[in-house]
Amino acid sequence: MSSTSGDFAEQLERIVGPGGLLSGAEVRDRGAASGGTAGHAPLLVRPRSTEQLSQLMALCWRRRQAVAIQGGMTGMVDAAEAGERELAVSLERMNRIEAIDPAGRTLTAQAGVTIQQVQEAAAAQGLLFAVDWGARGSATVGGGVSTNAGGNAVLRYGMMREQVLGLEAVLADGRVLSSMNRLLKNNTGYDLKQLFIGSEGTLGIVTRVVLRLRPQPRSRQTAMLAVESLDQVIELLDRLDTELGGTLSAFEVMWREFYELVVEEGGHQWALPAGHPFYVLVQSTGADPERDGERFETVLFGAMEAGLVADAVIGASDSQRDALWAIRDDIATLFRALSPKLNYDVSVPVQDMEAYVTRVRSDLEARFPGARGAVFGHLGDGNLHLCWCVGGNGRAQSAAVSEIVYDNLQPFGGSISAEHGIGLQKRAYLRRSRSELEIEWMRHLKQLFDPRQILNPGRVLGE
Amino acid sequence: MSSTSGDFAEQLERIVGPGGLLSGAEVRDRGAASGGTAGHAPLLVRPRSTEQLSQLMALCWRRRQAVAIQGGMTGMVDAAEAGERELAVSLERMNRIEAIDPAGRTLTAQAGVTIQQVQEAAAAQGLLFAVDWGARGSATVGGGVSTNAGGNAVLRYGMMREQVLGLEAVLADGRVLSSMNRLLKNNTGYDLKQLFIGSEGTLGIVTRVVLRLRPQPRSRQTAMLAVESLDQVIELLDRLDTELGGTLSAFEVMWREFYELVVEEGGHQWALPAGHPFYVLVQSTGADPERDGERFETVLFGAMEAGLVADAVIGASDSQRDALWAIRDDIATLFRALSPKLNYDVSVPVQDMEAYVTRVRSDLEARFPGARGAVFGHLGDGNLHLCWCVGGNGRAQSAAVSEIVYDNLQPFGGSISAEHGIGLQKRAYLRRSRSELEIEWMRHLKQLFDPRQILNPGRVLGE
Repeated sequence: MSSTSGDFAEQLERIVGPGGLLSGAEVRDRGAASGGTAGHAPLLVRPRSTEQLSQLMALCWRRRQAVAIQGGMTGMVDAAEAGERELAVSLERMNRIEAIDPAGRTLTAQAGVTIQQVQEAAAAQGLLFAVDWGARGSATVGGGVSTNAGGNAVLRYGMMREQVLGLEAVLADGRVLSSMNRLLKNNTGYDLKQLFIGSEGTLGIVTRVVLRLRPQPRSRQTAMLAVESLDQVIELLDRLDTELGGTLSAFEVMWREFYELVVEEGGHQWALPAGHPFYVLVQSTGADPERDGERFETVLFGAMEAGLVADAVIGASDSQRDALWAIRDDIATLFRALSPKLNYDVSVPVQDMEAYVTRVRSDLEARFPGARGAVFGHLGDGNLHLCWCVGGNGRAQSAAVSEIVYDNLQPFGGSISAEHGIGLQKRAYLRRSRSELEIEWMRHLKQLFDPRQILNPGRVLGE
Repeated sequence: MSSTSGDFAEQLERIVGPGGLLSGAEVRDRGAASGGTAGHAPLLVRPRSTEQLSQLMALCWRRRQAVAIQGGMTGMVDAAEAGERELAVSLERMNRIEAIDPAGRTLTAQAGVTIQQVQEAAAAQGLLFAVDWGARGSATVGGGVSTNAGGNAVLRYGMMREQVLGLEAVLADGRVLSSMNRLLKNNTGYDLKQLFIGSEGTLGIVTRVVLRLRPQPRSRQTAMLAVESLDQVIELLDRLDTELGGTLSAFEVMWREFYELVVEEGGHQWALPAGHPFYVLVQSTGADPERDGERFETVLFGAMEAGLVADAVIGASDSQRDALWAIRDDIATLFRALSPKLNYDVSVPVQDMEAYVTRVRSDLEARFPGARGAVFGHLGDGNLHLCWCVGGNGRAQSAAVSEIVYDNLQPFGGSISAEHGIGLQKRAYLRRSRSELEIEWMRHLKQLFDPRQILNPGRVLGE
């Protein structure tokens, strides 16, 4: 930040009011408290409204002051980590649910509202906000939209992109681009909102969104299944997706190491005995509480008879169902057990997953004898998470593991990021999943929307 | 076209080969035969491959030659109608299904493949391509993607945008931007394909697509219901959507005039007696042939007991179900009966539809005594089609009716185009649904992708 930062701080405070601006130790401590880091920015500003953020960006535009945009700080790729020359901008005080329209099934919220708050507000009206993932209590709507987050129900409801009917964004120069559409269908010119979804705050700052809500399911069926091979897991997915009709909402796979490590280290009950190669968490949600359970059991029984399932447990109550989910969601235990961990998020066509994981494992063990890892993911979406411990997570180790994880994707047409995004962490690898011409056009768009390079500079595309 | 058009024709023919280039009467006759018009272009070129189209656009780029891009010629807003200074480019010979991947549930096709061909190829693998509308036999994948088409199953499966995993586009200068992603989740940088979906050929020419397929439903339940008020129609929608879980796939509403006119003039059987204010075509598709029918009947019976349904007929066989759909799909009869017709495609929040239609009707009858009209649409998506006959469809009458149809949208935040797009026909009205700043950014994008204004010039944004 420039030498006139005293002036600058005053100007910022005039916009956001006292309490809206944090500096020095307040910024650093904040980072420590959240378990992550807000980065090294000398100042952190917290607007309460689109108007304040608009004024703030107009000021930054004039001063060519770069900003690092922060939501719930639950991202996995360091996009929100502020550099020492950046102004950190947190949307945490833009946390109002502005409207909920039960007839039109929409919810309008400021960007700083958490995923869980949206879920709860929808549920209070008998409706469902369909996006969900472990960090629901901290992650925000703005962060989820900016990163096109995925999570546990993509198979049925799509990613965040599919939930966004309208949005408002503050542009680099402070102007407010409002496309707060509430309609399911609206083909009037270019769908500008798509540009801000998944571009990780590099083209504009998402400030408000109109989200699509769905009917609240009336039944929930959850089971954990043990399966002997990945081929069978894939056949099982196809079978359940077909036989459960539109009701299959999750198909989460844990490789043996994940399941055993998390249950043991996390103090969970053994839902199924250890030792099976794969554990699958399946959930269906439906509209007919009387019959959905029976249908679910019939379909699972058919899969067992067909030899696809070696063992199974069906959650008989909400607490049992929650206990099954708690194993899958206990990423904190996994990360602790594999500390210092290196964590990846890739997409691979399901039919190539076995070959892919085998190659990664063998390359890693050759390079890092004693390496330990666990694989899990949203298999129904072709999305795997790989978490590896090779004894350190410094720059050299991280680069070596990344090479192995990403190089092996190439023959299968896989993606280096399924749902976490690129941020600062993966930008060196973007070329593994995108062509030169694609990246050239991304740069054209960046130049068009942010010619002074002040919005999350360096994220996604690098400098 | 310039005075050197003889040379130009030769150059085009060198690229596309003999038979690839039509001129003069061949172009005009073609227009007449299709019932629409291919426009007034002196030349029409038909590339067979992306490579040919790429060479062709490189040539047009150098000559600053504008092109009008043509798919199945089933659009409703004249986007594909070629002006006399334009070169018509038809993708009809790019009609190959290149691959189908049952495990990954994707289908890769050239842009000129029809919707019906995709549906049939998917069905042959036990899979479903979910987008569907009446013109399925002529409308092409490229046209559907370029316009983000909707249709009869949006309620459950989303619009064309939600079916597109990857695409390839030829840019204005002939370069080929390939984003042929086959993965459900791929958050690696900006999702460039979104720019080409729904931008009506003004930013690039969609040449190939990777489409998402779904499990093929095993049961289909279809009913026609008579309902006494729009409030009850809306309550019925909410009830069925909730009680049928994920299986409700269509909820199509016909105002009385539509139903009576189409049945009478189209020679259909009366599915239900005339005289009810609303007729609703409902369809659910599921995975359990044994029980889905029973569930469907139980839910409908509940709705009747609740007083929401005055009369009902359930299709007992595929031919009966098809006969119910034939009424809804018989737009040709409607258009003939209301000739010379003026046809509209708007979105309005469901709770405001009654007020909206009442206002439009009363304004039209005041302005055009004796005006006749029919309203129908995909009510589950908030999408209404209005077809009106005011005795003529010349410029003045069209403008007067458009003003009434669009002006009345404003108080409800409606959209002037739900699914048909803007094309040439609605560009004068784009400001009714988009702000100045939105349109300014659309123009920036147009300038970035098509600085010589040669791709479908004038469409969407005007000159």
